[in-house]
Amino acid sequence: MRSIVPDYLTDALADVEPNMQGELAGYIPELAAADPGRLGAVFATVDGEVHGAGDVDVTFTIQSISKPFVYALALSDRGFAPVLAKVGVEPSGEAFNEISVERGTGRPRNPMINAGAITVHSVAGAEGLTPTERVDRVIRGLSAFAGRDLTVDETVCASEMESAHRNLAIAHMLRSYGILTEDPRAVVDGYIRQCSVLVTTRDLAVMAATLANRGVNPRTGQQVVDAAVVRQVLSVMATCGMYDAAGDWATQVGIPAKSGVAGGLIGALPGQVGIATFSPRLDAHGNSVRGVSLFERFASDMGLHVMEVPPAARATVRSDHVHGHGPAAMRVLEVQGGIRFAGAERIVREFVDAAPREPRVALDLTRVSSIDDVARRMLLEAVRRLTLDGHDVYLVDPESMIPDPDPGPGGRVTVISQVEQALSRPPARPENAS
Amino acid sequence: MRSIVPDYLTDALADVEPNMQGELAGYIPELAAADPGRLGAVFATVDGEVHGAGDVDVTFTIQSISKPFVYALALSDRGFAPVLAKVGVEPSGEAFNEISVERGTGRPRNPMINAGAITVHSVAGAEGLTPTERVDRVIRGLSAFAGRDLTVDETVCASEMESAHRNLAIAHMLRSYGILTEDPRAVVDGYIRQCSVLVTTRDLAVMAATLANRGVNPRTGQQVVDAAVVRQVLSVMATCGMYDAAGDWATQVGIPAKSGVAGGLIGALPGQVGIATFSPRLDAHGNSVRGVSLFERFASDMGLHVMEVPPAARATVRSDHVHGHGPAAMRVLEVQGGIRFAGAERIVREFVDAAPREPRVALDLTRVSSIDDVARRMLLEAVRRLTLDGHDVYLVDPESMIPDPDPGPGGRVTVISQVEQALSRPPARPENAS
Amino acid sequence: MRSIVPDYLTDALADVEPNMQGELAGYIPELAAADPGRLGAVFATVDGEVHGAGDVDVTFTIQSISKPFVYALALSDRGFAPVLAKVGVEPSGEAFNEISVERGTGRPRNPMINAGAITVHSVAGAEGLTPTERVDRVIRGLSAFAGRDLTVDETVCASEMESAHRNLAIAHMLRSYGILTEDPRAVVDGYIRQCSVLVTTRDLAVMAATLANRGVNPRTGQQVVDAAVVRQVLSVMATCGMYDAAGDWATQVGIPAKSGVAGGLIGALPGQVGIATFSPRLDAHGNSVRGVSLFERFASDMGLHVMEVPPAARATVRSDHVHGHGPAAMRVLEVQGGIRFAGAERIVREFVDAAPREPRVALDLTRVSSIDDVARRMLLEAVRRLTLDGHDVYLVDPESMIPDPDPGPGGRVTVISQVEQALSRPPARPENAS
Amino acid sequence: MRSIVPDYLTDALADVEPNMQGELAGYIPELAAADPGRLGAVFATVDGEVHGAGDVDVTFTIQSISKPFVYALALSDRGFAPVLAKVGVEPSGEAFNEISVERGTGRPRNPMINAGAITVHSVAGAEGLTPTERVDRVIRGLSAFAGRDLTVDETVCASEMESAHRNLAIAHMLRSYGILTEDPRAVVDGYIRQCSVLVTTRDLAVMAATLANRGVNPRTGQQVVDAAVVRQVLSVMATCGMYDAAGDWATQVGIPAKSGVAGGLIGALPGQVGIATFSPRLDAHGNSVRGVSLFERFASDMGLHVMEVPPAARATVRSDHVHGHGPAAMRVLEVQGGIRFAGAERIVREFVDAAPREPRVALDLTRVSSIDDVARRMLLEAVRRLTLDGHDVYLVDPESMIPDPDPGPGGRVTVISQVEQALSRPPARPENAS
Repeated sequence: MRSIVPDYLTDALADVEPNMQGELAGYIPELAAADPGRLGAVFATVDGEVHGAGDVDVTFTIQSISKPFVYALALSDRGFAPVLAKVGVEPSGEAFNEISVERGTGRPRNPMINAGAITVHSVAGAEGLTPTERVDRVIRGLSAFAGRDLTVDETVCASEMESAHRNLAIAHMLRSYGILTEDPRAVVDGYIRQCSVLVTTRDLAVMAATLANRGVNPRTGQQVVDAAVVRQVLSVMATCGMYDAAGDWATQVGIPAKSGVAGGLIGALPGQVGIATFSPRLDAHGNSVRGVSLFERFASDMGLHVMEVPPAARATVRSDHVHGHGPAAMRVLEVQGGIRFAGAERIVREFVDAAPREPRVALDLTRVSSIDDVARRMLLEAVRRLTLDGHDVYLVDPESMIPDPDPGPGGRVTVISQVEQALSRPPARPENAS
Repeated sequence: MRSIVPDYLTDALADVEPNMQGELAGYIPELAAADPGRLGAVFATVDGEVHGAGDVDVTFTIQSISKPFVYALALSDRGFAPVLAKVGVEPSGEAFNEISVERGTGRPRNPMINAGAITVHSVAGAEGLTPTERVDRVIRGLSAFAGRDLTVDETVCASEMESAHRNLAIAHMLRSYGILTEDPRAVVDGYIRQCSVLVTTRDLAVMAATLANRGVNPRTGQQVVDAAVVRQVLSVMATCGMYDAAGDWATQVGIPAKSGVAGGLIGALPGQVGIATFSPRLDAHGNSVRGVSLFERFASDMGLHVMEVPPAARATVRSDHVHGHGPAAMRVLEVQGGIRFAGAERIVREFVDAAPREPRVALDLTRVSSIDDVARRMLLEAVRRLTLDGHDVYLVDPESMIPDPDPGPGGRVTVISQVEQALSRPPARPENAS
Repeated sequence: MRSIVPDYLTDALADVEPNMQGELAGYIPELAAADPGRLGAVFATVDGEVHGAGDVDVTFTIQSISKPFVYALALSDRGFAPVLAKVGVEPSGEAFNEISVERGTGRPRNPMINAGAITVHSVAGAEGLTPTERVDRVIRGLSAFAGRDLTVDETVCASEMESAHRNLAIAHMLRSYGILTEDPRAVVDGYIRQCSVLVTTRDLAVMAATLANRGVNPRTGQQVVDAAVVRQVLSVMATCGMYDAAGDWATQVGIPAKSGVAGGLIGALPGQVGIATFSPRLDAHGNSVRGVSLFERFASDMGLHVMEVPPAARATVRSDHVHGHGPAAMRVLEVQGGIRFAGAERIVREFVDAAPREPRVALDLTRVSSIDDVARRMLLEAVRRLTLDGHDVYLVDPESMIPDPDPGPGGRVTVISQVEQALSRPPARPENAS
Repeated sequence: MRSIVPDYLTDALADVEPNMQGELAGYIPELAAADPGRLGAVFATVDGEVHGAGDVDVTFTIQSISKPFVYALALSDRGFAPVLAKVGVEPSGEAFNEISVERGTGRPRNPMINAGAITVHSVAGAEGLTPTERVDRVIRGLSAFAGRDLTVDETVCASEMESAHRNLAIAHMLRSYGILTEDPRAVVDGYIRQCSVLVTTRDLAVMAATLANRGVNPRTGQQVVDAAVVRQVLSVMATCGMYDAAGDWATQVGIPAKSGVAGGLIGALPGQVGIATFSPRLDAHGNSVRGVSLFERFASDMGLHVMEVPPAARATVRSDHVHGHGPAAMRVLEVQGGIRFAGAERIVREFVDAAPREPRVALDLTRVSSIDDVARRMLLEAVRRLTLDGHDVYLVDPESMIPDPDPGPGGRVTVISQVEQALSRPPARPENAS
């Protein structure tokens, strides 16, 4: 059987290929000389599978797509407070190269505009690094996201530096506000090296998948940044990633995204997939024309919108019945599926609404596919309360969905693999309590 | 056993209760005379359970919290195009009562600022309604979201109308641009009636839960608006709901939300829960001080951030083995949990990577808790391709997770309840194909 | 002999007449139906002569040209402080109908934009007037500037009121800030009546000449407003009168000016002339196309720019010589021309540089054509000091250029008509001192 | 006799001396270390007299006061068009160091903000100069305005360059728009040298007097720039010189002015006087606190406001009578004072209203103190028309107020020194005509 996703991607590329709208970025000769016909798209899933179609291995410069990743590195290296003190998180409603800073403080509005990204570059890596060491740390960090060693396109880098007047203007202004504390020229030089890193569409998809996968590169298994950093980065991409078209993108596509002037475009769908496209012709906002079309199509075809409410799942509580009778009677609640807050609330409610009269109570997690943190804590609290109400409580958890359960003060729980195990043993006595 | 969620809410209220910061809205006597000590919080789950603590049944005026709901009604009544033609979806980065319209066209930037909300009110209901009929439709619509008949506070309404100069200014300006096409005074009058609808914290939580539940009121079962409308409304709430603090809210709380000047605050977590709080003292942005604190706590305690990547779920593919041998041999793929794009991709890949040599192939959905649309389509395409490759394909689906499966041209599938059913029957013959 | 100025005006009109650029104001039918071919220009001198060419007696509505005059009336009726508290004097750099107010206070930036002019209308006349009484006072005031009873075009007025949404928006917003304190609708109604006053080009030129003539209507001799008010009004016209083209106008034309949407345009050159033109087609700024051309020509041909430095005048000190000898010797300083600060400084210096040894000193003003206030005070101070130095001082002033001279404490001066009078009389004795 | 003006200045300084408000500019050590008690004021008249009080010979850096003078040099060196193409003339309503440029083009709004002044520096001197040569030309030009060789404070210059991030930001941005065409760093370096020129209050007053005197240094007699350039510079100073306080200054002081961050402040009153003050403490707008007070006092005491309408002068026509009778009869019009447009109009009108029946007509200019260009042209046209009407026309002009009069085609005029000369000669015959 031929795989479905590559076929889907091939079809999608064929649909957008005839669209010749947009213009190549023309501010440096290297970008102006790009092959405008290049077209590629890649999906990288959170379990590490990569599907692509088109020009997936052609290299191009990462440009602004480096911004969210270096933001992640800075948050990771320095912590949230010092980074947020220097760069805000508010959408600016302005084009990418606007000198858009807060009145009075000079704080750039967000890390996705150049002013913010230049500042973020300056706080990547540990404090006290030299500019060169900082660039090394940034390139190693981007490489960790991509899962391979990335390099800089020195020709593009030199060319960008020659026409970097806008970025130098921004950096000198940030220096005048004390947002930058070093030589503005050195910071811009480092930032331009960051933007000149060479990637393929495949690299970008893996990088995006690393965000979608809570910061763990699904190919290498490396935890590049932690989940709290990823949440911050995705939030900022969602509100500020597409510049002045942020609202249109948020409603129509609804995938946290970032574009680059060389034609790259990435999106990260939390828990599912990293997506990357490549097509060099840009629209008036500076976003890849065919890339935007592809994402609109992906969103529409696949329901990959973060505000798409998933369809009502199968009832969390699969069954609620009593085994045995008398002192050996056991109330068994069999639950299923992915348990998040609402599911946990439903389970807890079952115990409250129909307070078990049976001395023994079992919660059967055999058919549960996932439990998130809040749900786990709620279920353990229910266990604790049931214990305090005088019940012996069992967790049927053959695959350790809740490893090492600790129901807290006064709570006790016995973990078993099958309901039958509990049925066959005598009622628990306090000295056996876990 | 006492329920956990109300206890949690009670604790949370106790924590924020001492916070006396902020000021009552003072622009009309009725709001200035509100009891500043009021405090309440309610969770309403998508399966209709409502948990509250504090002043959950005190009535107050809905004010700006009406904005996302009437936006939903307008999108539903008129369709997307005419509403989007009049009101944009871009964050404005400005305070709620700014006269924030696009240069040239006069189109309000989004439906959450007053200019947008007044315009949205004017396109609620079918075309051709009188102002009074439109107000009726709006109040009936809000009532459907709340699941009970809501009424207007006539005293507040009259008082608001007396000090409605800012809104009248906005409306006359919209009229001058042709965005409003009726008497501006009548539209403002209707909009003020909309804002003067009396609700309780409980009502607001149910209204929010209706959004979280794809537009279906989880108490009454009524489909108030459809899922596409809900997606649009939640997207706009996420980027524009908290005015000029949109970025802070998006990163720190991450729940699509909306506040009202009477002290209400709602959040809707797609697929899980509607949340409402009530506390009348407001911060400088016009948001309830203790309400914002409560939401920050909920987000932090419960991981209810839309960009929170769920923890890696149990592997989708539970087992992949062969029953029997020879011409009767059947390859059985047992899958589990909630299947979305990434899970479906994994399943499809299993078939591609290890192309079944067995003539018969079964996909066992018994332990699956949910399947979304894209996953369903991918699985059916896999069925079709397997058929074309010469396999007999079975779907083990005792609870109809995929009702009436149609694998498309050339595809065939037999639905069974247990793997054993297939094992015991002879290999399918073409004339039996479904 | 035929007069020169009318011939000049006739030539100037002939030059601009073929210019068909620009559009009629189209927002109400009455303006859209104006005859676009109308063309007129009038000069009114500060001594009351009126020269015109073209359509000088056709009536049209005064529109925004009423703004500086009603500003003058408000300053005159209420004093500077209350008016400046409500309306600023800073250029806005924006189009006339922008809702351009100061952040926070809502104070309109200047009286030439609509927000400012509506506010100014509301403070014209004494406090406590009804809206109708205020309109009466405004129309009487405009009539005093024009020197004849002006009336309102009721058709235009009614039509403007129907499409007054932008002005109503502005007025409601001003009311919301407390800048307006009355019913916004009534104020806008009054303002629109003010703008609907019918004038001819001849009227406008006389109105402008009243400003150029220190507030005295040069035809009727009425002091309509005082000189301090005129100075304020001309200053504001100079910086804010031509909306967003203020800087271009200030450099290229340099005459304080104001335009109206019906095609009128006025300029006031202090101390010299009031100019008005009429041609209904407007440019993108809302200024009369041919009117602007005419003013540019007037400025270029006639050097009527307020920053045009007048050519060096004939030396102020015509002669300095001594008549007679011994105790009867008299030093006579004969001065000439218009004496302002610089001239007075020169005269005073003559006395200082060459401290008169003669007991008698005469200042001969016979050939002086004007003395301004500061020059008069400086000359009298010189008289006082000469007296204190022991001189007898005479003022030869046959035409009372300095009436009732009072040189202050210790000063004495004898006014004579001819130097010979002093020469023939004995030296003054203290008891004869004036 | 003691001179009046120095006494006046001494009194004025004494009044403002106790005012300790404001802060020294603190961005470089040299300015922060200035003596805050310094206070001086100087008047320089257009005939070259300089009066001062206080610290008139202390040197300090010229800073932004260089802006109007280098603007004058650039206009003079390159012509208006290329300079206006790069820098506008509109007030910005913003602080001096805002990066205030036109959207799209990047053209600075005016030459008084830093962006404009940096650009102006880059176009001072002939095209093709090296940066060093340009600085030389600028310093020589400023020296010509001051009438002595000025030098640069190298310590301040070096210090400014170290903290020039804001200006470098501006320059790089201007380079990115192509407004600057050279290395931004070199241009900023030159601009900073320009700002570091050392001046005294006395120098500044002479520089201002050069503007007030049509571009001729009243001390040296050198024509530094021409009158058209001066008009442009004064216009821009009037609307943009005092940054965001432009409107307040224009109404309250009304003298074209410019301030510098080292504490200098200049004003130029066309045709009369250049004024300079020095006091280093600055207000929030960056203007000298005591300097602004002094100018307000000068304006109020002395009526030195450009919109101050001069008081009505003595009638221009002093007498109109007939000498002799019969064919020898001569109509003599004796005029007086300064003749500008309005006076010339009055004279011409006298001839039109009472068309002379006498064959001979004389215009007696003996008592005229000045005639401006338009008046001269009008009087000659009147002469021409009188000739065409058949009159013999005489100009009684003993001091050549109208040198070499040329009345144009068909006109003839005989210049005499006294009316009696004409009376005694026979009527002119055509062959004698001039």
